[in-house]
Amino acid sequence: MTDHRSHVTDVIVVGAGMSGLSCADTLLRQGVDVLVLEARDHVGGRTRLVEADGEILDLGGQFIGPGQDRVHALAKELGIEVFATHVAGDHLVETSSGRVRHWRGTVPRLSMPQLLDLAQAQARFERLARTIDPVAPWSSPNAAVLDDQTLATWIGRTLRTRGGRRLYSLATRLMWACEPSELSLLHALFYARSAGSLQAVMATEGGAQQDRLDQGAGELARRLAARLGDRVRLGAPVRWIAQNDDEVLIGTEAGDTVRAARVVVAIPPVLAGRIGYDPPLPAGRDGLTQRLAMGSAIKCLIVYPEPFWRSDGLSGQALSLRGPLSGVTDSSPRSGNRGVLVGILEGAVARELAALPEHERKSAVLDQLARLFGPRAARPCAYLEQDWSAEPFTRGAYAALFPPGAWTQYGPALRTPVGRIHWAGSETATRWYGYIDGAVRSGQAAADEVLMS
Amino acid sequence: MTDHRSHVTDVIVVGAGMSGLSCADTLLRQGVDVLVLEARDHVGGRTRLVEADGEILDLGGQFIGPGQDRVHALAKELGIEVFATHVAGDHLVETSSGRVRHWRGTVPRLSMPQLLDLAQAQARFERLARTIDPVAPWSSPNAAVLDDQTLATWIGRTLRTRGGRRLYSLATRLMWACEPSELSLLHALFYARSAGSLQAVMATEGGAQQDRLDQGAGELARRLAARLGDRVRLGAPVRWIAQNDDEVLIGTEAGDTVRAARVVVAIPPVLAGRIGYDPPLPAGRDGLTQRLAMGSAIKCLIVYPEPFWRSDGLSGQALSLRGPLSGVTDSSPRSGNRGVLVGILEGAVARELAALPEHERKSAVLDQLARLFGPRAARPCAYLEQDWSAEPFTRGAYAALFPPGAWTQYGPALRTPVGRIHWAGSETATRWYGYIDGAVRSGQAAADEVLMS
Repeated sequence: MTDHRSHVTDVIVVGAGMSGLSCADTLLRQGVDVLVLEARDHVGGRTRLVEADGEILDLGGQFIGPGQDRVHALAKELGIEVFATHVAGDHLVETSSGRVRHWRGTVPRLSMPQLLDLAQAQARFERLARTIDPVAPWSSPNAAVLDDQTLATWIGRTLRTRGGRRLYSLATRLMWACEPSELSLLHALFYARSAGSLQAVMATEGGAQQDRLDQGAGELARRLAARLGDRVRLGAPVRWIAQNDDEVLIGTEAGDTVRAARVVVAIPPVLAGRIGYDPPLPAGRDGLTQRLAMGSAIKCLIVYPEPFWRSDGLSGQALSLRGPLSGVTDSSPRSGNRGVLVGILEGAVARELAALPEHERKSAVLDQLARLFGPRAARPCAYLEQDWSAEPFTRGAYAALFPPGAWTQYGPALRTPVGRIHWAGSETATRWYGYIDGAVRSGQAAADEVLMS
Repeated sequence: MTDHRSHVTDVIVVGAGMSGLSCADTLLRQGVDVLVLEARDHVGGRTRLVEADGEILDLGGQFIGPGQDRVHALAKELGIEVFATHVAGDHLVETSSGRVRHWRGTVPRLSMPQLLDLAQAQARFERLARTIDPVAPWSSPNAAVLDDQTLATWIGRTLRTRGGRRLYSLATRLMWACEPSELSLLHALFYARSAGSLQAVMATEGGAQQDRLDQGAGELARRLAARLGDRVRLGAPVRWIAQNDDEVLIGTEAGDTVRAARVVVAIPPVLAGRIGYDPPLPAGRDGLTQRLAMGSAIKCLIVYPEPFWRSDGLSGQALSLRGPLSGVTDSSPRSGNRGVLVGILEGAVARELAALPEHERKSAVLDQLARLFGPRAARPCAYLEQDWSAEPFTRGAYAALFPPGAWTQYGPALRTPVGRIHWAGSETATRWYGYIDGAVRSGQAAADEVLMS
């Protein structure tokens, strides 16, 4: 409230995540003057670089996969190389009683009835997902029936074996960082459809976890921001957005006021709903932001002097029904200079463990890793974590979750501009919703929308 | 941002609805100095008085019932008389094809299979509701299973006849102003339990619609505010709340800063989530506010020179499967000087009709009333409406809806104070959640909490 500088630009972009930066970059290259306002002291949104033991690692989104053309094109343009996620060796699966088994391929070793149960459920899910219109899920056939129920209800109805239901719930946590009760079946189907298929969401080879980016996915944001230069203003949380027939006026927490012809709000819906709007947003748009909560994810990075599991014939990939981590992946840097395991505490587990002091959470994670990979796993050279729900300018991860009723009742408000306000962010993507690729697409789409307005 | 007045008081209450006013009133009578900050230019929250054709009417909450001891006591203390909702005469029910039938008592005329279906479902619901702990629904037996599903799923599983399912969905709209997909079964059960039973929620005689307040329910707030005098500051939306070990600092939109030892936030969760907090709220509390959306209700008041339906042998009460209003009630003033019908557009219907110009919405409502009560109903002397979802400082009605997973995952954060911040509002009540009585209880409970802190 101390400084009343006034700035005039063509377009203001709120948020310097992958969506906002992609939007600003696209606009700038079309000769449109932009200003990006970012609440945090760094760019990247739900991607984030961190240094540990001399290595640059990702504390946020890190994987990319086939079909993610926009992020691939962007990486190429920015000179960032893509390399394959390490998969050679045996994977592990830990039962709820703590028994560890080796497996290979795409499905852990299970009894024949469980395998059949999973295969049948998988086929049903994929068949249903193909009926969803990824651009307008609310207009899909049977949208109302699919949106009336939670994914938990569908799992309970469809899977007949206890093991099958457990694995489906585990997969829910891995894919959406939430419990199966927290999302609408329609949303789960839409999400898979926006990625191509559930198989594409889950798979490493041939799927969304297939590849990684040299120097970290967070490098994309860093290079885009470098290109935008002082058009990106950090530490500038937006408090209110006012508009009239001629322009948009934006107020930051520090009391600055900035003017532009248009604004692109490129942050998750829950954060967009916390900005003040004058005039107030229509009830439909506001109702949407009231409903789209974020998932709960605490990402844990565990750094070792070397990827020792590889010489034991292990891939570093594990699934666990016992937890606390539902899954573990080899996330070692391309150089192989260090060994890095990555795991995410998700949903209810994230919420429970968030209340513990870090050293207790760390112990629980290292105990589990030792069960899976042996005693060396209990002695990392670094342990890092990020609770995305506790991050004031993110408030959860991986993405917004549509609860039952939200897509069918409020879906049309997701991308519809309100006067001079346009919406971006991975949640507005019609392909790869919730992914880095979706963020890039959404930013570019919003830029196109602004250019045509 | 123009005026930097600083004010010191013991307790600041955010929101001058029934909860905030009850809280402030209780504190003041214990000798605690209070300041109530209200965003709007009037008090009352989700109750609201309006004048039409010389009569004072309620545009918001209006009914009270047996067991609502706190609101009864408050009315008595404030000298406001209670009178019975008009029920004499035949009720009407309109089928989805528009056929109108007369009925009496508590259940509309239905076929025997439908009646049995409804009776069985009702008994099951009440039996389940009695298992819920209204203070800690998340710790009820089977809480996880009940919170895994929507009310829509339960209706689909429990009711066998199409007519039964339709009436249950209609009842959902009447009770919660939402679609059955929008709330968790656990929440529906908790809600009924907090009111005593589903029967108590639905009934007029012996239930929550039994009585009304002379001069309108909104008169409660008006008189409480009069007692608080200049301790209530109108037009002062709160933008941020900061706290340290010693005090709370609160900033309003106009740039004023006010200090106190404690603050009671007595507004719906979605609005509480839009205030900025320093330090940021814990993820559990924030996650709760991300999830609790409000219902959708447009209240319509239709005023006639007299309650003409009474002389036709009609009670003025109607249910309709055709709509747009799901239900109609005689809401004439006690004097009988005018005839007033009240109806609410709820859930999906509210969202659809909100997009129409007022005259079209009015036509749809008057057409329906003419089908029910004859041609005189099409010629009111006044038509008033309030879309609570479009009200920037309410953003929906009647109350917040817990979607699946929210009670079990985030319930404990509902009432737990965060440092010097206490929570009130009808959504924090353990009895009569969402009612005026719940608001009064919650405000008094928060006052007690502050006094003991």
